[in-house]
Amino acid sequence: MAFRVRRGVGFPAMSARLLALGLTLLGLSPVVVSEPTSAPEGPVYTSDGLQLPANYREWIYLSSGFDMSYRPGRQMDHHDFDNVFVNPAAYREFSRTGRWPDKTQFVLEVRTAEGKGSINTSGNFQGAGIMELEMHVKDEARFPGKWAFFSFGDRSVGTLLPTSAECYACHAAHAAVDTTFVQFYPTLLPIARSHGTLSPTYKAENPRG
Amino acid sequence: MAFRVRRGVGFPAMSARLLALGLTLLGLSPVVVSEPTSAPEGPVYTSDGLQLPANYREWIYLSSGFDMSYRPGRQMDHHDFDNVFVNPAAYREFSRTGRWPDKTQFVLEVRTAEGKGSINTSGNFQGAGIMELEMHVKDEARFPGKWAFFSFGDRSVGTLLPTSAECYACHAAHAAVDTTFVQFYPTLLPIARSHGTLSPTYKAENPRG
Repeated sequence: MAFRVRRGVGFPAMSARLLALGLTLLGLSPVVVSEPTSAPEGPVYTSDGLQLPANYREWIYLSSGFDMSYRPGRQMDHHDFDNVFVNPAAYREFSRTGRWPDKTQFVLEVRTAEGKGSINTSGNFQGAGIMELEMHVKDEARFPGKWAFFSFGDRSVGTLLPTSAECYACHAAHAAVDTTFVQFYPTLLPIARSHGTLSPTYKAENPRG
Repeated sequence: MAFRVRRGVGFPAMSARLLALGLTLLGLSPVVVSEPTSAPEGPVYTSDGLQLPANYREWIYLSSGFDMSYRPGRQMDHHDFDNVFVNPAAYREFSRTGRWPDKTQFVLEVRTAEGKGSINTSGNFQGAGIMELEMHVKDEARFPGKWAFFSFGDRSVGTLLPTSAECYACHAAHAAVDTTFVQFYPTLLPIARSHGTLSPTYKAENPRG
């Protein structure tokens, strides 16, 4: 697998920091499979960060992007996908209320995009290489702004990003619901709309909702 | 939403039939949210087909493709994503054994791809429009070949495709595991490899595994 870096995708503006970290492909093993009720769903902190949930691929899938960028003029020498997962309890609560409960956890997984392979002749499918993992966690008692971002290098423990990191300001300014990019999660946006939980800034930027 | 049709993606070669059906965007409502244990996982048949599982978006996500085609020369006037989900019990069994148990159900969901929108400046994210839904179901007692494909038009009941449909022959010839395209599911391919369940035809076509 080649060394690759990303520019301006996923949770926006984290990429400068990630570039600085010089991330390589993580090369993680297939996730551990657990029975549905065996793992605690709340965030698990360590002395130096946040534990990557071993079973996040069994969480609720929200959506994927392809080569997304929040900055104009992204130049790429490759393609990538980003997949977003949320813990099931938070998903169920959001589905009922249009709001994220305390202890909500998102995982953003960025994967390599493959082109020709097997019988695929055009377009892209997701490859084995994980290029980035990031988390966005709501923990009202722990974080002054209620939410925090964590970046995982090649480790299973994520590093807390300081509130001066661009991602906080960008999510606060542009996210559709409670600092989360519900506008990119097609099954959730109508739920937020129906519950009236779209943020004022999002509604101002997107008059059609 | 515009009328759109697809050519040669997802479960391969079903698209000719789907074109013939003249599928429009389905415009389904957000899926019903259920508690984790409340819905039966096995296929539910009706008098004329297969019931779409209301909570399939809560199943295990396997992967997404972008503009994929199994046929050379696909000409597109739009972009699309396809998302693949499998029922949790089947996923857990596959994770343990590299094999799909009886009653395995896959859902292929094809979504519109949006470009510019909100703060996204390039690349694509998934839109609200569902362009196709297809299912691939293993039911050893019911189907002579153990597996069957179902196509959903704008209905919540899928129509059984006859075994003369191209998809059956193509999956039998090219799929990595038991007529399923595990080669496009990055977390599952290493599991199949480690359990030695890759099909002989796949191994012949892909000597590097």
